[in-house]
Amino acid sequence: MSQKLYVVKIGGNVIDNPEACARFLTDFAKLPAPKILVHGGGKVATQIAAKLQIETQMVDGRRITDKPMLDVVTMVYGGLVNKNLVAQLQTVHCNAIGLTGADGGIIRSVKRPVKTIDYGFVGDIESVNDEQVNALINSNLVPVIAPLTYSSEGLLLNTNADTMASAMAVAMAKHYEVNLIYCFEKKGVLSDPDDDNAVIASLTLTSYAGYKNSGVINKGMIPKLDNAFAALTDGVSKVTICHADDLLQAASGVAGTQITQE
Amino acid sequence: MSQKLYVVKIGGNVIDNPEACARFLTDFAKLPAPKILVHGGGKVATQIAAKLQIETQMVDGRRITDKPMLDVVTMVYGGLVNKNLVAQLQTVHCNAIGLTGADGGIIRSVKRPVKTIDYGFVGDIESVNDEQVNALINSNLVPVIAPLTYSSEGLLLNTNADTMASAMAVAMAKHYEVNLIYCFEKKGVLSDPDDDNAVIASLTLTSYAGYKNSGVINKGMIPKLDNAFAALTDGVSKVTICHADDLLQAASGVAGTQITQE
Repeated sequence: MSQKLYVVKIGGNVIDNPEACARFLTDFAKLPAPKILVHGGGKVATQIAAKLQIETQMVDGRRITDKPMLDVVTMVYGGLVNKNLVAQLQTVHCNAIGLTGADGGIIRSVKRPVKTIDYGFVGDIESVNDEQVNALINSNLVPVIAPLTYSSEGLLLNTNADTMASAMAVAMAKHYEVNLIYCFEKKGVLSDPDDDNAVIASLTLTSYAGYKNSGVINKGMIPKLDNAFAALTDGVSKVTICHADDLLQAASGVAGTQITQE
Repeated sequence: MSQKLYVVKIGGNVIDNPEACARFLTDFAKLPAPKILVHGGGKVATQIAAKLQIETQMVDGRRITDKPMLDVVTMVYGGLVNKNLVAQLQTVHCNAIGLTGADGGIIRSVKRPVKTIDYGFVGDIESVNDEQVNALINSNLVPVIAPLTYSSEGLLLNTNADTMASAMAVAMAKHYEVNLIYCFEKKGVLSDPDDDNAVIASLTLTSYAGYKNSGVINKGMIPKLDNAFAALTDGVSKVTICHADDLLQAASGVAGTQITQE
């Protein structure tokens, strides 16, 4: 089979914690290339918006992105967070290049249509330019992607980082054997939500159905896992869910939850 | 001789004016590739710093970059300004990729040593990774570079855009016949500062010496022109100084001031 590619997603909880973030980046640098990092936003955007007296509107746990807030997330996600990750990775000999979906036209989206809720400047992914991303990888670069895409009208659009990581992993599966790794605050998918060490080591579609039927897998994880299985259906070889501190072990298959089709 | 490469620098005055900026970007998109855009900051950083109640300190017309201000310029130059330029260029079919010096490690600097004045987080350029920039160009990308570099310690550093454009032009002269174009608010170098149409069409080291001796070229232009001639000495083929609205004509040699060694 083709060469292995890691697509790793880290969330805002790691970005918001400088020590955890530095540990994660040191590990990420050690992960064999080719690799791609997709990062979330963190709380800094909300804090800076507050200082700029821009109100953060949330509906059902989702941020409403009006124009002033779009400018803030463009600054914070595309500038402050992304460029600091890149500069830190460069010091640990990882040749990072910070990108939004607009850069090189790598991830194009459409502004989410208004149904009952107007989410504002939020993008739903339309296409990933896998050839352009591959050209960057072949230039020995490690793409570090902020949660922003762009529309054909030249709008920058706030976009969910989990979805971006998944779309990127699927698109790159044309070229590589892709392992999509979601780093979050738990050690993996838990069989007991109150026991942080009760990690389900592996999941297939069959065992997932069983865990769902018996109610072992809690409701919060179901959309994440449904997305993981959708990525596998679309060509990704393996999805791993792990704690950010366990990246290297999880990439070796000895930590976190390893999710495969069969 | 080798292929032609344009390195174009635009200043904050164009970025601060949405109509002028859109006109410029449409023209820049028409300029034949390969090409590189280096942009200045504009007033937005100062405005946002003021809203965040961060005081902008200036000494001799230069911004002092303390840590809070570094975060603001990283957000504004590397995020807001850079990514909006990229998104706009993508809509006019220019495959822009927005970068700071940290991305791909393309421009490394050292934090300016403290002599009489402590400029704070300001970088003096140490090296340009011309091979990496060339790899991007060979991937059909158009680098759009924000005025930020990085140090080997992983610091992002505020850096003068004119100097970055010049260092980039010199480094790329190993690979290309480079035309470095500085766009500013005048039509070129003027023989009469009160007559905006009194453009000196061409300058060589000899004619420049004459203009300097006779006092025709005013003091404000001398550092800019000294830098232009230094770039020519270091391998750049031609330096052009023109109005942002005249980019295409200036690139064809029929507008602005064309500066060559002989």
